[in-house]
Amino acid sequence: MPTLILVRHGQSDWNLQNRFTGWVDVDLAPAGVAEARAAGRALSGEGIGIDRAFTSVLKRAIRTLWLMLDEMDQMWVPVERSWRLNERHYGALQGLDKAETAARHGAGQVKIWRRSFATPPPALDAADPGHPRFERRYDGLAQSELPSGESLEMTLARVLPCWRGAIAPALAEGETVLVAAHGNSLRALVMYLDGLSESEVLELNIPTGLPLVYDLAEDLAPRSSRYLADPAAVAAAARAVADQAGG
Amino acid sequence: MPTLILVRHGQSDWNLQNRFTGWVDVDLAPAGVAEARAAGRALSGEGIGIDRAFTSVLKRAIRTLWLMLDEMDQMWVPVERSWRLNERHYGALQGLDKAETAARHGAGQVKIWRRSFATPPPALDAADPGHPRFERRYDGLAQSELPSGESLEMTLARVLPCWRGAIAPALAEGETVLVAAHGNSLRALVMYLDGLSESEVLELNIPTGLPLVYDLAEDLAPRSSRYLADPAAVAAAARAVADQAGG
Repeated sequence: MPTLILVRHGQSDWNLQNRFTGWVDVDLAPAGVAEARAAGRALSGEGIGIDRAFTSVLKRAIRTLWLMLDEMDQMWVPVERSWRLNERHYGALQGLDKAETAARHGAGQVKIWRRSFATPPPALDAADPGHPRFERRYDGLAQSELPSGESLEMTLARVLPCWRGAIAPALAEGETVLVAAHGNSLRALVMYLDGLSESEVLELNIPTGLPLVYDLAEDLAPRSSRYLADPAAVAAAARAVADQAGG
Repeated sequence: MPTLILVRHGQSDWNLQNRFTGWVDVDLAPAGVAEARAAGRALSGEGIGIDRAFTSVLKRAIRTLWLMLDEMDQMWVPVERSWRLNERHYGALQGLDKAETAARHGAGQVKIWRRSFATPPPALDAADPGHPRFERRYDGLAQSELPSGESLEMTLARVLPCWRGAIAPALAEGETVLVAAHGNSLRALVMYLDGLSESEVLELNIPTGLPLVYDLAEDLAPRSSRYLADPAAVAAAARAVADQAGG
Protein backbone atom coordinates (compact mmCIF):
# COMPACT_ATOMS: atom_id res chain seq x y z
CA MET A 1 0.00 0.00 0.00
CA PRO A 2 1.48 3.39 -0.93
CA THR A 3 2.56 5.48 2.02
CA LEU A 4 3.44 9.16 1.87
CA ILE A 5 5.28 10.86 4.72
CA LEU A 6 5.54 14.65 4.82
CA VAL A 7 7.96 16.44 7.14
CA ARG A 8 8.28 20.18 7.51
CA HIS A 9 11.79 21.33 8.44
CA GLY A 10 12.24 22.74 11.91
CA GLN A 11 13.64 25.95 13.28
CA SER A 12 16.07 27.84 11.03
CA ASP A 13 18.44 30.66 11.84
CA TRP A 14 15.97 33.18 10.40
CA ASN A 15 12.99 31.78 12.31
CA LEU A 16 15.05 32.70 15.34
CA GLN A 17 15.67 36.19 13.97
CA ASN A 18 12.01 36.60 12.94
CA ARG A 19 12.91 37.34 9.30
CA PHE A 20 11.03 36.44 6.11
CA THR A 21 12.97 33.59 4.49
CA GLY A 22 11.37 32.19 1.33
CA TRP A 23 14.06 31.06 -1.10
CA VAL A 24 16.98 32.44 0.92
CA ASP A 25 19.16 29.43 1.71
CA VAL A 26 19.23 29.70 5.48
CA ASP A 27 20.46 26.74 7.51
CA LEU A 28 18.74 24.94 10.38
CA ALA A 29 19.24 26.29 13.87
CA PRO A 30 20.40 23.77 16.51
CA ALA A 31 16.75 23.30 17.58
CA GLY A 32 15.87 22.45 13.97
CA VAL A 33 18.64 19.85 13.88
CA ALA A 34 17.17 18.27 17.01
CA GLU A 35 13.67 18.31 15.46
CA ALA A 36 14.94 16.52 12.36
CA ARG A 37 16.70 13.85 14.40
CA ALA A 38 13.55 13.33 16.49
CA ALA A 39 11.49 12.97 13.31
CA GLY A 40 13.87 10.29 12.08
CA ARG A 41 13.63 8.46 15.39
CA ALA A 42 9.82 8.66 15.30
CA LEU A 43 9.80 6.90 11.91
CA SER A 44 12.38 4.37 13.06
CA GLY A 45 10.26 3.69 16.12
CA GLU A 46 7.38 2.70 13.85
CA GLY A 47 9.70 0.46 11.84
CA ILE A 48 8.99 2.43 8.67
CA GLY A 49 11.26 1.71 5.74
CA ILE A 50 11.58 4.46 3.14
CA ASP A 51 11.90 3.58 -0.55
CA ARG A 52 12.48 7.04 -1.98
CA ALA A 53 12.78 10.61 -0.72
CA PHE A 54 12.15 14.04 -2.17
CA THR A 55 13.28 17.41 -0.94
CA SER A 56 13.80 20.98 -2.13
CA VAL A 57 17.05 22.63 -3.21
CA LEU A 58 17.20 24.58 0.07
CA LYS A 59 19.57 23.35 2.73
CA ARG A 60 17.19 23.57 5.68
CA ALA A 61 14.99 20.92 4.03
CA ILE A 62 17.92 18.89 2.65
CA ARG A 63 19.64 18.82 6.04
CA THR A 64 16.37 17.78 7.67
CA LEU A 65 16.20 14.86 5.24
CA TRP A 66 19.87 13.95 5.77
CA LEU A 67 19.48 13.92 9.54
CA MET A 68 16.33 11.80 9.30
CA LEU A 69 17.92 9.28 6.93
CA ASP A 70 20.96 9.13 9.18
CA GLU A 71 18.85 8.47 12.29
CA MET A 72 16.89 5.83 10.38
CA ASP A 73 20.10 4.23 9.07
CA GLN A 74 18.71 4.58 5.55
CA MET A 75 21.24 6.93 3.99
CA TRP A 76 21.21 4.71 0.88
CA VAL A 77 17.64 5.68 -0.07
CA PRO A 78 17.45 7.47 -3.46
CA VAL A 79 16.84 11.20 -3.03
CA GLU A 80 15.50 13.65 -5.60
CA ARG A 81 15.90 17.39 -5.05
CA SER A 82 13.44 19.71 -6.78
CA TRP A 83 13.08 23.50 -6.73
CA ARG A 84 9.33 22.80 -7.00
CA LEU A 85 9.36 21.76 -3.34
CA ASN A 86 11.01 25.02 -2.25
CA GLU A 87 9.33 27.31 0.25
CA ARG A 88 7.00 29.95 -1.19
CA HIS A 89 9.11 32.75 -2.68
CA TYR A 90 8.60 35.75 -0.45
CA GLY A 91 9.49 38.39 -3.05
CA ALA A 92 10.84 41.70 -1.80
CA LEU A 93 10.00 40.72 1.78
CA GLN A 94 12.80 38.13 1.89
CA GLY A 95 15.37 39.05 4.49
CA LEU A 96 13.18 41.67 6.17
CA ASP A 97 12.37 41.62 9.85
CA LYS A 98 8.73 40.63 10.30
CA ALA A 99 8.00 43.11 13.07
CA GLU A 100 9.64 46.02 11.20
CA THR A 101 7.70 45.11 8.08
CA ALA A 102 4.43 45.19 10.02
CA ALA A 103 5.37 48.58 11.49
CA ARG A 104 6.10 49.97 8.04
CA HIS A 105 3.26 48.50 5.98
CA GLY A 106 0.67 47.82 8.66
CA ALA A 107 -0.17 44.55 10.32
CA GLY A 108 -3.23 44.09 8.11
CA GLN A 109 -1.22 44.31 4.90
CA VAL A 110 1.41 41.94 6.21
CA LYS A 111 -1.27 39.50 7.23
CA ILE A 112 -2.63 39.55 3.67
CA TRP A 113 0.84 38.91 2.25
CA ARG A 114 1.41 36.11 4.69
CA ARG A 115 -1.97 34.45 4.77
CA SER A 116 -4.06 35.15 1.69
CA PHE A 117 -4.33 32.41 -0.91
CA ALA A 118 -3.95 34.43 -4.08
CA THR A 119 -2.12 37.66 -3.18
CA PRO A 120 1.61 37.53 -3.85
CA PRO A 121 4.04 39.61 -1.80
CA PRO A 122 5.69 42.64 -3.45
CA ALA A 123 7.95 41.36 -6.23
CA LEU A 124 11.70 41.09 -5.87
CA ASP A 125 13.43 43.28 -8.47
CA ALA A 126 14.85 41.15 -11.28
CA ALA A 127 18.10 43.10 -10.91
CA ASP A 128 18.37 42.26 -7.20
CA PRO A 129 21.47 40.10 -6.66
CA GLY A 130 19.31 37.83 -4.49
CA HIS A 131 17.01 37.03 -7.43
CA PRO A 132 17.01 33.30 -8.23
CA ARG A 133 18.07 34.00 -11.81
CA PHE A 134 21.57 34.69 -10.47
CA GLU A 135 21.81 31.37 -8.64
CA ARG A 136 23.52 28.44 -10.31
CA ARG A 137 21.10 25.95 -8.79
CA TYR A 138 18.29 27.40 -10.94
CA ASP A 139 20.28 27.44 -14.20
CA GLY A 140 18.11 24.78 -15.80
CA LEU A 141 14.87 26.73 -15.34
CA ALA A 142 13.18 28.88 -17.96
CA GLN A 143 12.98 32.57 -17.06
CA SER A 144 9.20 32.18 -16.99
CA GLU A 145 9.51 29.56 -14.26
CA LEU A 146 11.63 31.70 -11.95
CA PRO A 147 9.45 33.45 -9.39
CA SER A 148 9.98 36.98 -8.08
CA GLY A 149 7.39 36.42 -5.37
CA GLU A 150 4.64 33.84 -4.95
CA SER A 151 1.19 33.51 -3.45
CA LEU A 152 0.20 30.14 -2.00
CA GLU A 153 -1.81 29.66 -5.18
CA MET A 154 1.34 30.15 -7.29
CA THR A 155 3.24 27.81 -4.98
CA LEU A 156 0.58 25.14 -5.46
CA ALA A 157 0.81 25.55 -9.23
CA ARG A 158 4.54 24.80 -9.29
CA VAL A 159 4.43 22.05 -6.65
CA LEU A 160 1.84 19.97 -8.52
CA PRO A 161 4.07 19.07 -11.51
CA CYS A 162 6.53 17.53 -9.02
CA TRP A 163 3.68 15.57 -7.46
CA ARG A 164 2.35 14.38 -10.80
CA GLY A 165 5.70 13.78 -12.48
CA ALA A 166 7.78 12.30 -9.68
CA ILE A 167 6.12 11.68 -6.30
CA ALA A 168 2.81 10.17 -7.47
CA PRO A 169 4.48 7.77 -9.93
CA ALA A 170 6.71 6.43 -7.14
CA LEU A 171 3.69 5.98 -4.86
CA ALA A 172 1.79 4.28 -7.68
CA GLU A 173 4.54 1.64 -7.63
CA GLY A 174 3.60 0.96 -4.03
CA GLU A 175 6.62 2.76 -2.59
CA THR A 176 6.89 4.44 0.78
CA VAL A 177 7.89 8.02 -0.02
CA LEU A 178 9.31 10.65 2.31
CA VAL A 179 9.04 14.35 1.41
CA ALA A 180 11.10 16.78 3.52
CA ALA A 181 10.10 20.31 2.60
CA HIS A 182 8.70 23.63 3.78
CA GLY A 183 5.60 25.09 5.42
CA ASN A 184 3.97 26.35 2.24
CA SER A 185 5.07 23.73 -0.29
CA LEU A 186 3.65 21.15 2.13
CA ARG A 187 0.46 23.17 2.76
CA ALA A 188 -0.04 23.22 -1.01
CA LEU A 189 0.44 19.46 -1.20
CA VAL A 190 -1.94 18.80 1.72
CA MET A 191 -4.52 21.15 0.18
CA TYR A 192 -4.40 19.07 -2.99
CA LEU A 193 -4.38 15.68 -1.24
CA ASP A 194 -7.14 16.49 1.24
CA GLY A 195 -9.19 18.59 -1.19
CA LEU A 196 -9.14 21.63 1.08
CA SER A 197 -10.87 24.85 0.06
CA GLU A 198 -8.99 28.15 -0.11
CA SER A 199 -10.39 29.16 3.27
CA GLU A 200 -9.61 25.77 4.81
CA VAL A 201 -5.97 25.88 3.74
CA LEU A 202 -5.56 29.30 5.38
CA GLU A 203 -6.36 27.63 8.70
CA LEU A 204 -3.94 24.79 8.03
CA ASN A 205 -0.71 24.94 10.00
CA ILE A 206 1.67 22.07 9.59
CA PRO A 207 3.81 21.60 12.69
CA THR A 208 7.56 21.41 12.18
CA GLY A 209 9.47 18.17 12.62
CA LEU A 210 6.44 15.90 13.04
CA PRO A 211 6.09 13.25 10.32
CA LEU A 212 2.62 13.39 8.72
CA VAL A 213 1.89 9.87 7.45
CA TYR A 214 -0.68 9.30 4.70
CA ASP A 215 -1.93 5.84 3.92
CA LEU A 216 -3.08 6.01 0.33
CA ALA A 217 -5.39 3.88 -1.77
CA GLU A 218 -4.16 2.41 -5.01
CA ASP A 219 -5.50 5.46 -6.86
CA LEU A 220 -3.51 7.57 -4.32
CA ALA A 221 -6.63 8.93 -2.61
CA PRO A 222 -5.88 9.39 1.11
CA ARG A 223 -7.42 6.63 3.25
CA SER A 224 -6.13 8.08 6.50
CA SER A 225 -3.46 10.42 7.80
CA ARG A 226 -1.84 10.94 11.18
CA TYR A 227 1.05 12.72 12.80
CA LEU A 228 3.64 10.51 14.42
CA ALA A 229 3.26 12.17 17.82
CA ASP A 230 0.59 12.29 20.50
CA PRO A 231 -2.35 14.65 19.75
CA ALA A 232 -1.42 17.15 22.47
CA ALA A 233 2.08 17.51 21.03
CA VAL A 234 0.63 18.02 17.56
CA ALA A 235 -1.79 20.71 18.75
CA ALA A 236 0.93 22.51 20.70
CA ALA A 237 3.28 22.38 17.73
CA ALA A 238 0.58 23.73 15.39
CA ARG A 239 -0.13 26.62 17.76
CA ALA A 240 3.57 27.40 17.93
CA VAL A 241 3.86 27.72 14.17
CA ALA A 242 0.48 29.38 13.52
CA ASP A 243 1.97 32.82 13.95
CA GLN A 244 4.96 32.21 11.72
CA ALA A 245 3.23 30.27 8.93
CA GLY A 246 4.61 31.27 5.61
CA GLY A 247 7.93 32.29 7.12
CA MET B 1 35.05 21.37 -20.54
CA PRO B 2 33.98 18.23 -18.67
CA THR B 3 35.61 17.80 -15.30
CA LEU B 4 35.54 14.63 -13.25
CA ILE B 5 36.48 14.64 -9.57
CA LEU B 6 37.05 11.36 -7.74
CA VAL B 7 37.24 11.15 -3.95
CA ARG B 8 37.93 8.03 -1.95
CA HIS B 9 36.29 8.03 1.48
CA GLY B 10 38.59 8.30 4.47
CA GLN B 11 39.09 6.26 7.57
CA SER B 12 36.18 4.08 8.66
CA ASP B 13 35.54 2.32 11.95
CA TRP B 14 36.77 -0.96 10.45
CA ASN B 15 39.92 0.56 8.96
CA LEU B 16 40.72 1.35 12.58
CA GLN B 17 39.96 -2.22 13.64
CA ASN B 18 41.93 -3.68 10.69
CA ARG B 19 38.93 -5.70 9.45
CA PHE B 20 37.92 -6.54 5.87
CA THR B 21 34.93 -4.34 5.05
CA GLY B 22 33.65 -4.69 1.47
CA TRP B 23 29.88 -4.22 1.38
CA VAL B 24 29.45 -4.08 5.16
CA ASP B 25 27.89 -0.68 5.85
CA VAL B 26 30.47 0.67 8.29
CA ASP B 27 30.47 4.38 9.08
CA LEU B 28 33.32 6.87 8.89
CA ALA B 29 35.59 7.21 11.89
CA PRO B 30 36.12 10.76 13.19
CA ALA B 31 39.34 10.99 11.16
CA GLY B 32 37.35 10.08 8.04
CA VAL B 33 34.88 12.85 8.79
CA ALA B 34 37.77 15.30 9.00
CA GLU B 35 39.20 13.99 5.71
CA ALA B 36 35.86 14.53 3.96
CA ARG B 37 35.53 18.07 5.26
CA ALA B 38 39.09 18.84 4.15
CA ALA B 39 38.32 17.45 0.68
CA GLY B 40 35.31 19.77 0.46
CA ARG B 41 37.43 22.74 1.51
CA ALA B 42 40.09 21.84 -1.06
CA LEU B 43 37.48 21.98 -3.84
CA SER B 44 35.98 25.19 -2.45
CA GLY B 45 39.44 26.70 -2.34
CA GLU B 46 39.76 26.13 -6.09
CA GLY B 47 36.34 27.68 -6.64
CA ILE B 48 35.06 24.47 -8.22
CA GLY B 49 31.29 24.29 -8.70
CA ILE B 50 29.79 20.80 -8.90
CA ASP B 51 26.89 20.10 -11.27
CA ARG B 52 26.14 16.52 -10.27
CA ALA B 53 27.41 13.93 -7.83
CA PHE B 54 27.48 10.15 -7.69
CA THR B 55 28.13 7.87 -4.77
CA SER B 56 27.59 4.29 -3.64
CA VAL B 57 24.83 2.96 -1.38
CA LEU B 58 27.30 2.61 1.51
CA LYS B 59 27.23 5.24 4.20
CA ARG B 60 30.96 5.84 4.45
CA ALA B 61 30.92 7.13 0.85
CA ILE B 62 27.54 8.89 1.16
CA ARG B 63 28.63 10.66 4.33
CA THR B 64 31.88 11.70 2.65
CA LEU B 65 29.82 13.24 -0.14
CA TRP B 66 27.41 14.93 2.29
CA LEU B 67 30.25 16.46 4.27
CA MET B 68 31.93 17.70 1.11
CA LEU B 69 28.74 19.23 -0.29
CA ASP B 70 28.10 20.85 3.08
CA GLU B 71 31.60 22.34 3.23
CA MET B 72 31.22 23.57 -0.35
CA ASP B 73 27.75 25.02 0.38
CA GLN B 74 26.41 22.99 -2.53
CA MET B 75 23.96 20.70 -0.76
CA TRP B 76 21.47 21.35 -3.57
CA VAL B 77 23.52 19.46 -6.18
CA PRO B 78 21.68 16.42 -7.60
CA VAL B 79 23.06 13.16 -6.20
CA GLU B 80 22.69 9.67 -7.62
CA ARG B 81 23.45 6.64 -5.47
CA SER B 82 24.42 3.41 -7.21
CA TRP B 83 25.40 -0.01 -5.82
CA ARG B 84 27.73 -0.16 -8.83
CA LEU B 85 30.04 2.29 -7.06
CA ASN B 86 30.19 0.14 -3.91
CA GLU B 87 33.50 -1.15 -2.60
CA ARG B 88 34.64 -4.52 -3.95
CA HIS B 89 32.61 -7.25 -2.24
CA TYR B 90 35.03 -9.11 -0.01
CA GLY B 91 33.08 -12.37 0.14
CA ALA B 92 33.58 -14.56 3.20
CA LEU B 93 36.45 -12.36 4.35
CA GLN B 94 34.08 -9.50 5.27
CA GLY B 95 34.21 -8.76 8.96
CA LEU B 96 37.37 -10.80 9.57
CA ASP B 97 40.47 -9.37 11.19
CA LYS B 98 43.17 -8.96 8.54
CA ALA B 99 46.02 -10.16 10.74
CA GLU B 100 44.09 -13.22 11.95
CA THR B 101 43.16 -14.06 8.38
CA ALA B 102 46.82 -13.90 7.35
CA ALA B 103 47.75 -16.14 10.29
CA ARG B 104 45.12 -18.71 9.29
CA HIS B 105 45.44 -18.74 5.50
CA GLY B 106 49.01 -17.52 5.08
CA ALA B 107 50.18 -14.06 4.13
CA GLY B 108 50.75 -15.13 0.53
CA GLN B 109 47.17 -16.30 0.05
CA VAL B 110 45.76 -13.15 1.66
CA LYS B 111 47.97 -11.04 -0.59
CA ILE B 112 46.49 -12.81 -3.63
CA TRP B 113 42.95 -12.21 -2.40
CA ARG B 114 43.72 -8.60 -1.72
CA ARG B 115 45.89 -7.68 -4.66
CA SER B 116 45.37 -9.95 -7.63
CA PHE B 117 43.29 -8.63 -10.50
CA ALA B 118 41.22 -11.69 -11.31
CA THR B 119 41.11 -13.87 -8.17
CA PRO B 120 37.99 -13.34 -6.08
CA PRO B 121 38.02 -13.92 -2.32
CA PRO B 122 36.28 -17.02 -0.91
CA ALA B 123 32.54 -16.63 -1.58
CA LEU B 124 30.09 -15.57 1.07
CA ASP B 125 27.50 -18.31 1.62
CA ALA B 126 24.18 -17.33 0.02
CA ALA B 127 22.48 -18.32 3.29
CA ASP B 128 24.67 -15.98 5.34
CA PRO B 129 22.47 -13.26 6.88
CA GLY B 130 25.06 -10.73 5.77
CA HIS B 131 24.55 -11.64 2.10
CA PRO B 132 23.35 -8.66 0.06
CA ARG B 133 20.26 -10.58 -1.08
CA PHE B 134 18.82 -10.02 2.40
CA GLU B 135 19.30 -6.26 2.27
CA ARG B 136 16.42 -4.03 1.21
CA ARG B 137 18.73 -1.61 -0.57
CA TYR B 138 19.53 -4.31 -3.16
CA ASP B 139 15.90 -5.36 -3.74
CA GLY B 140 15.87 -4.03 -7.29
CA LEU B 141 18.82 -6.16 -8.41
CA ALA B 142 18.63 -9.47 -10.23
CA GLN B 143 20.04 -12.44 -8.30
CA SER B 144 22.70 -12.73 -10.99
CA GLU B 145 23.88 -9.19 -10.24
CA LEU B 146 24.32 -9.76 -6.51
CA PRO B 147 27.93 -10.63 -5.75
CA SER B 148 29.07 -13.13 -3.12
CA GLY B 149 32.65 -11.95 -3.48
CA GLU B 150 34.43 -9.99 -6.20
CA SER B 151 37.83 -9.69 -7.79
CA LEU B 152 38.93 -6.26 -9.01
CA GLU B 153 38.10 -7.51 -12.50
CA MET B 154 34.50 -8.26 -11.40
CA THR B 155 34.33 -4.88 -9.70
CA LEU B 156 35.41 -3.17 -12.91
CA ALA B 157 32.75 -5.07 -14.85
CA ARG B 158 29.93 -3.77 -12.63
CA VAL B 159 31.32 -0.24 -12.28
CA LEU B 160 31.49 0.36 -16.03
CA PRO B 161 27.72 0.33 -16.68
CA CYS B 162 27.40 3.18 -14.16
CA TRP B 163 30.14 5.05 -15.98
CA ARG B 164 28.58 4.50 -19.40
CA GLY B 165 24.96 4.93 -18.37
CA ALA B 166 25.13 7.79 -15.90
CA ILE B 167 28.51 9.45 -15.26
CA ALA B 168 29.79 9.71 -18.85
CA PRO B 169 26.48 11.13 -20.19
CA ALA B 170 26.58 13.89 -17.56
CA LEU B 171 30.19 14.68 -18.44
CA ALA B 172 29.31 14.68 -22.14
CA GLU B 173 26.91 17.55 -21.34
CA GLY B 174 29.93 19.50 -20.10
CA GLU B 175 29.10 19.03 -16.43
CA THR B 176 31.51 19.00 -13.51
CA VAL B 177 30.89 15.66 -11.82
CA LEU B 178 31.95 14.54 -8.35
CA VAL B 179 32.19 10.83 -7.53
CA ALA B 180 32.59 9.90 -3.85
CA ALA B 181 33.30 6.22 -3.60
CA HIS B 182 35.70 3.49 -2.47
CA GLY B 183 39.27 2.32 -2.97
CA ASN B 184 38.47 -0.43 -5.47
CA SER B 185 35.51 1.04 -7.34
CA LEU B 186 37.71 4.10 -7.94
CA ARG B 187 40.76 1.99 -8.89
CA ALA B 188 38.54 0.29 -11.46
CA LEU B 189 37.40 3.65 -12.82
CA VAL B 190 40.95 5.03 -12.97
CA MET B 191 42.16 1.83 -14.67
CA TYR B 192 39.55 2.37 -17.36
CA LEU B 193 40.12 6.12 -17.71
CA ASP B 194 43.90 5.95 -17.76
CA GLY B 195 44.08 2.71 -19.74
CA LEU B 196 46.15 0.94 -17.09
CA SER B 197 47.24 -2.66 -17.54
CA GLU B 198 46.39 -5.35 -14.99
CA SER B 199 49.86 -5.09 -13.49
CA GLU B 200 49.76 -1.27 -13.45
CA VAL B 201 46.46 -1.16 -11.57
CA LEU B 202 47.91 -3.44 -8.87
CA GLU B 203 50.45 -0.71 -8.13
CA LEU B 204 47.78 1.98 -8.06
CA ASN B 205 46.87 3.23 -4.61
CA ILE B 206 44.37 6.05 -4.42
CA PRO B 207 44.88 8.14 -1.31
CA THR B 208 41.83 8.77 0.86
CA GLY B 209 40.20 12.18 1.07
CA LEU B 210 42.25 13.83 -1.69
CA PRO B 211 40.16 15.00 -4.66
CA LEU B 212 41.55 13.60 -7.93
CA VAL B 213 40.57 16.06 -10.65
CA TYR B 214 40.43 14.95 -14.30
CA ASP B 215 40.15 17.49 -17.06
CA LEU B 216 38.56 15.62 -19.93
CA ALA B 217 38.38 16.23 -23.66
CA GLU B 218 35.02 16.39 -25.39
CA ASP B 219 35.25 12.66 -26.11
CA LEU B 220 35.96 12.21 -22.36
CA ALA B 221 39.57 11.14 -22.90
CA PRO B 222 41.68 12.43 -19.95
CA ARG B 223 43.74 15.50 -20.88
CA SER B 224 45.30 15.82 -17.44
CA SER B 225 44.71 14.77 -13.87
CA ARG B 226 45.96 16.00 -10.53
CA TYR B 227 45.34 15.61 -6.85
CA LEU B 228 44.21 18.73 -5.03
CA ALA B 229 47.11 18.60 -2.60
CA ASP B 230 50.86 19.10 -2.77
CA PRO B 231 52.83 16.14 -4.24
CA ALA B 232 54.49 15.24 -0.94
CA ALA B 233 51.09 14.95 0.77
CA VAL B 234 49.83 12.79 -2.08
CA ALA B 235 52.83 10.45 -1.90
CA ALA B 236 52.57 10.16 1.87
CA ALA B 237 48.85 9.44 1.66
CA ALA B 238 49.39 6.79 -1.03
CA ARG B 239 52.05 5.07 1.10
CA ALA B 240 49.68 5.10 4.05
CA VAL B 241 46.95 3.30 2.14
CA ALA B 242 49.20 0.95 0.13
CA ASP B 243 49.10 -1.67 2.84
CA GLN B 244 45.35 -1.56 3.29
CA ALA B 245 44.31 -1.29 -0.36
CA GLY B 246 41.19 -3.29 -0.96
CA GLY B 247 40.02 -2.95 2.62
